[in-house]
Amino acid sequence: MTVRVAVAGASGYAGGELLRLLLAHPEVEIGALTAGGNAGTPLGQHHPNLLPLADRVLTDTGPAELAGHDVVFLALPHGHSAAIAAALDERTVVVDCGADHRLNDPSAWTRWYGGEHPGTWPYGIPELPGARERLRGSTRIAVPGCFPTVSSLALAPALAAGLVEPDAVVVAVTGTSGAGRALKPHLLSAEVMGSAAVYGVGGAHRHTPELVQNLSAAAGTPVKVSFTPVLAPMSRGILATCSAPLADVVDTGAARRTYLDAYGDEPFVRVLPEGQWPQTSATLGANTVHLQLVVDPDAGRLVVVGAEDNLTKGTAGGAVQCMNLALGLPETTGLPTAGVAP
Amino acid sequence: MTVRVAVAGASGYAGGELLRLLLAHPEVEIGALTAGGNAGTPLGQHHPNLLPLADRVLTDTGPAELAGHDVVFLALPHGHSAAIAAALDERTVVVDCGADHRLNDPSAWTRWYGGEHPGTWPYGIPELPGARERLRGSTRIAVPGCFPTVSSLALAPALAAGLVEPDAVVVAVTGTSGAGRALKPHLLSAEVMGSAAVYGVGGAHRHTPELVQNLSAAAGTPVKVSFTPVLAPMSRGILATCSAPLADVVDTGAARRTYLDAYGDEPFVRVLPEGQWPQTSATLGANTVHLQLVVDPDAGRLVVVGAEDNLTKGTAGGAVQCMNLALGLPETTGLPTAGVAP
Amino acid sequence: MTVRVAVAGASGYAGGELLRLLLAHPEVEIGALTAGGNAGTPLGQHHPNLLPLADRVLTDTGPAELAGHDVVFLALPHGHSAAIAAALDERTVVVDCGADHRLNDPSAWTRWYGGEHPGTWPYGIPELPGARERLRGSTRIAVPGCFPTVSSLALAPALAAGLVEPDAVVVAVTGTSGAGRALKPHLLSAEVMGSAAVYGVGGAHRHTPELVQNLSAAAGTPVKVSFTPVLAPMSRGILATCSAPLADVVDTGAARRTYLDAYGDEPFVRVLPEGQWPQTSATLGANTVHLQLVVDPDAGRLVVVGAEDNLTKGTAGGAVQCMNLALGLPETTGLPTAGVAP
Amino acid sequence: MTVRVAVAGASGYAGGELLRLLLAHPEVEIGALTAGGNAGTPLGQHHPNLLPLADRVLTDTGPAELAGHDVVFLALPHGHSAAIAAALDERTVVVDCGADHRLNDPSAWTRWYGGEHPGTWPYGIPELPGARERLRGSTRIAVPGCFPTVSSLALAPALAAGLVEPDAVVVAVTGTSGAGRALKPHLLSAEVMGSAAVYGVGGAHRHTPELVQNLSAAAGTPVKVSFTPVLAPMSRGILATCSAPLADVVDTGAARRTYLDAYGDEPFVRVLPEGQWPQTSATLGANTVHLQLVVDPDAGRLVVVGAEDNLTKGTAGGAVQCMNLALGLPETTGLPTAGVAP
Repeated sequence: MTVRVAVAGASGYAGGELLRLLLAHPEVEIGALTAGGNAGTPLGQHHPNLLPLADRVLTDTGPAELAGHDVVFLALPHGHSAAIAAALDERTVVVDCGADHRLNDPSAWTRWYGGEHPGTWPYGIPELPGARERLRGSTRIAVPGCFPTVSSLALAPALAAGLVEPDAVVVAVTGTSGAGRALKPHLLSAEVMGSAAVYGVGGAHRHTPELVQNLSAAAGTPVKVSFTPVLAPMSRGILATCSAPLADVVDTGAARRTYLDAYGDEPFVRVLPEGQWPQTSATLGANTVHLQLVVDPDAGRLVVVGAEDNLTKGTAGGAVQCMNLALGLPETTGLPTAGVAP
Repeated sequence: MTVRVAVAGASGYAGGELLRLLLAHPEVEIGALTAGGNAGTPLGQHHPNLLPLADRVLTDTGPAELAGHDVVFLALPHGHSAAIAAALDERTVVVDCGADHRLNDPSAWTRWYGGEHPGTWPYGIPELPGARERLRGSTRIAVPGCFPTVSSLALAPALAAGLVEPDAVVVAVTGTSGAGRALKPHLLSAEVMGSAAVYGVGGAHRHTPELVQNLSAAAGTPVKVSFTPVLAPMSRGILATCSAPLADVVDTGAARRTYLDAYGDEPFVRVLPEGQWPQTSATLGANTVHLQLVVDPDAGRLVVVGAEDNLTKGTAGGAVQCMNLALGLPETTGLPTAGVAP
Repeated sequence: MTVRVAVAGASGYAGGELLRLLLAHPEVEIGALTAGGNAGTPLGQHHPNLLPLADRVLTDTGPAELAGHDVVFLALPHGHSAAIAAALDERTVVVDCGADHRLNDPSAWTRWYGGEHPGTWPYGIPELPGARERLRGSTRIAVPGCFPTVSSLALAPALAAGLVEPDAVVVAVTGTSGAGRALKPHLLSAEVMGSAAVYGVGGAHRHTPELVQNLSAAAGTPVKVSFTPVLAPMSRGILATCSAPLADVVDTGAARRTYLDAYGDEPFVRVLPEGQWPQTSATLGANTVHLQLVVDPDAGRLVVVGAEDNLTKGTAGGAVQCMNLALGLPETTGLPTAGVAP
Repeated sequence: MTVRVAVAGASGYAGGELLRLLLAHPEVEIGALTAGGNAGTPLGQHHPNLLPLADRVLTDTGPAELAGHDVVFLALPHGHSAAIAAALDERTVVVDCGADHRLNDPSAWTRWYGGEHPGTWPYGIPELPGARERLRGSTRIAVPGCFPTVSSLALAPALAAGLVEPDAVVVAVTGTSGAGRALKPHLLSAEVMGSAAVYGVGGAHRHTPELVQNLSAAAGTPVKVSFTPVLAPMSRGILATCSAPLADVVDTGAARRTYLDAYGDEPFVRVLPEGQWPQTSATLGANTVHLQLVVDPDAGRLVVVGAEDNLTKGTAGGAVQCMNLALGLPETTGLPTAGVAP
């Protein structure tokens, strides 16, 4: 099987990571690479790491350039994907790495993004209950945000099993590639290196409603979520510290069993051995989430910590995993599980 | 006034930061510099940054070397300070940067550190209610841990004012100098750079009981605290994200007024203007804590974020501030409020 | 003595470092703070580290705002200082941190910067032969570039003493604050962290003619200089590895004596003890240059390595040192020699 | 073809990177994993990134454990490989990542490492003249040091073509993983982050004789080499700035043609397009060297800059490339050419 794939938004960070993974995918042939303002320039100027594609020239992002592919990945600013998808053959698998089709609730969309809701597509975290089935054979897929991926996987089993109250606190440390290649002063290296900073505090980050949606679905009841993202001086990686009040008397061993039941067969989610805690470097460039958990009886909380690479499992790796499901390929095809460390 | 000062444990990170600050203190003359295994070596070998003291040779840490000073700073592993203090003149101001005399509850000491409780000394966060009065003129002072300093200042006003329930979650990102100069694999630069990692999760970190003690005193009732420290790839700095459930209907403006009332006259604690969030680089090398807060009505929580330099306000700067109080000097003498950034 | 000082370009990195140092200067009162596009905003928005000045509002950079000060520091893009200086009283000390008045040769100016040469001012590295005398009492001073400061101090004594041929190779690793607060993609934190990169290779960097000028003056003959700057993932610091072919048979001991003779009495230049090599962290925030050297008989070269903080001794600290000389104050007034480390 | 491979020294950084690459190699089956003091512990404790091997337990490094494999990689401290190789079947391909068999000159070995020379094996940089032929089918291979790999590739074509004098200066910035997992104070993260430092200056680094050997072979005459390694705050990556005096009048275009002739057909060495300079992040985790060069007529030198990942092309990737040659596999089998960036 040879799958012909186009990437729209190829000069950004998500686009670059998609191409890195697709280069190693045995069933994929890389077709059109498109961009906005960078159209007409060679890819190597934007992604010198992608040696095999360095001389490929970026074209405009338009229906004509994207037509004729089996799969189209969209790595575009929010608001751009609905029109493009509408112009593509409905049998084309469209995998949207943007936010446009993640939220179920049109009013939540309007509150957080403004304008009319572009519609909801099957949501791309296969490891959440029921998700894998909805993704298999789908031709429209909404790739989740990087924070919701690891945070949802970290808390969903406990909420689903009723171990904790529907009242979560998530503080997630992230590398700065998650903000994209935006020329903003607070992303300049001299500002970031040697410093930790918060942003989007108090529910102001756009990933909050997505996290609320996922956790509420897992719990079967509305979940309150306090979400705080923290910028740390690293390029990649998210470390999410997630906790919630214990609903019942439970010890760490019992909570572990809940998580091992949920993820024991998952190829990309690893509950670490007891005593070993996640670190983001172990997931760098890999399509994996590492989890560990503990019950804190004094504080009366379950604490679950998850690590992922925001660009791989948090974006492009998750997107390729969904593509595999959509195409009926083995889900793990072409996806690394060994991170690049140290 | 010339104050003759000795530093025990001068070759470690806390000792080095004490000396950097004392060099700039207009009333201080630096006397004995002592060490354990590094005795006999020049200070410049351990702290090449301390140019004016580079040729000073470290002596052994013993009562004879430390005698004859007005002030003795102890920057030693826990368990060493009680015996040294007992051998010093009782009029000598002894400022202990270690953990030995921080906890009020002997059973808490035994649970967390083992062995017999060495006794409680006045606790060195002058900005907490009642603390300044206890520190003025005191000849024995317990400098707090780096995490409790910023976290206590972040949550105490809200707890004291009854804005929040006595049930706090603190996730604090820290640079690795907080772990000291210990030769441990997880502190090697190749492991730390590019990675975020947790440790001491679920109440396992020794700063937890100290934080519980401070917050419970502020609240006037026992406070549950879930504390998670996160190692980030930076040398210095702590960014603590602290939250608790709202006890009552309160908006951000009202909560801000509580904090401005508490800290408006404090020279070293700054509630940032609305919309500006703390970043650790702004406090680097300065004896300051920067705070910002917001009410999240959806999550039903107050979120307070604080930044400090763990070695300055979090250790050595706080220690010098306490020395000033003990000696009757103006509290701000010799202490920088401008951080080194970018 | 109270010196009233204005800073033009206060919202940039050089401006911020000037203010950090001036805040600690015992004879200085900080007057006007001016900016270009940032005029009208509070300083704390740009330099949250400068707590004592956080609420000061930036004004426009114009002669009216800058008039009435004893000293005016210019931290502006090149090409702006001549007109401003012309509009100021000639007794006002004008210290230009830009490039405009560094080069002696008008044709070199035109080649490297274009346009007409704005004229040459006394050059601000007091430790170079003859420089201190020219700076004392001067009312116009050209602060050197950050690379030329450390590199010139590293090689001048060997060239002046005829130890080496006039044929130097300088490879200087720098933190990214040297590039200023420019919104350029290659300065984004996600690009810089975890990566080393070169730029301005093969004599393309504008500091090259300044370095040639300094080294040729020291040697008394034209010196060829191969200069390569390397961007490393750190905010501050320059580590310059400088070498030249041995002109004669000389061993490390003899070369050391030449350097100790040159710098033994200098308060801000330290030849480290044998066996200890420079590291930039030891100079962070300090007005110091650390040097070490060795003769490599197999390669037939003298290798001198120097470290400095590009923003302190390399820009703002050197500027304040020059101001002290200009005003007849003790040269070391208000300038730190202890770096902030680790 | 299934190749059964053992890795001795699997808990170190080189061992870990070998395993990461071997996991993705389509012809390899991973056999024994051995260690020294870490024998008996699971691999996941040392390399949490190697998820597929996390539960494999390390065994002792001895002939019995290593017997019965087609290929044995040795990632051991120097001095250990000769005895192990002697105990293995002579048809076993032994690939030594240590220094033992790199130097041709026994007296150079004795000078730099002490003791008796363990003998010389075919040297593992296939892209150097004549090397590929010596490696094909060889059963004993000496993998080069990380610095000599990129530096030799950067300078060999110019020396071989007589473009430059046999008098080279190499200043190479490196990440700290090159020093291995050694518990040394100067490798602690708090010392490394935010700082650049030199070591092994003046010909004191053990990679110097290896570099002299390679460059002299390329030039056909003894080459003098001044080599300075610089530690930068990053985990991986080497950026080598290499230069030598021009032997003749040559411009950048002519020099580029020499390099394109030398490397145009090489899959792992890329001469970047004009105007684009190497950065180490573009090679992270890839088996590639990126080169760029310029003639500086004012300085009279050719400057060549090379980037590589010290653990991949500089160690483990180069080792796997040599294994492929030894086994008669296509040289590029299983080796990534796309780096992990940003």
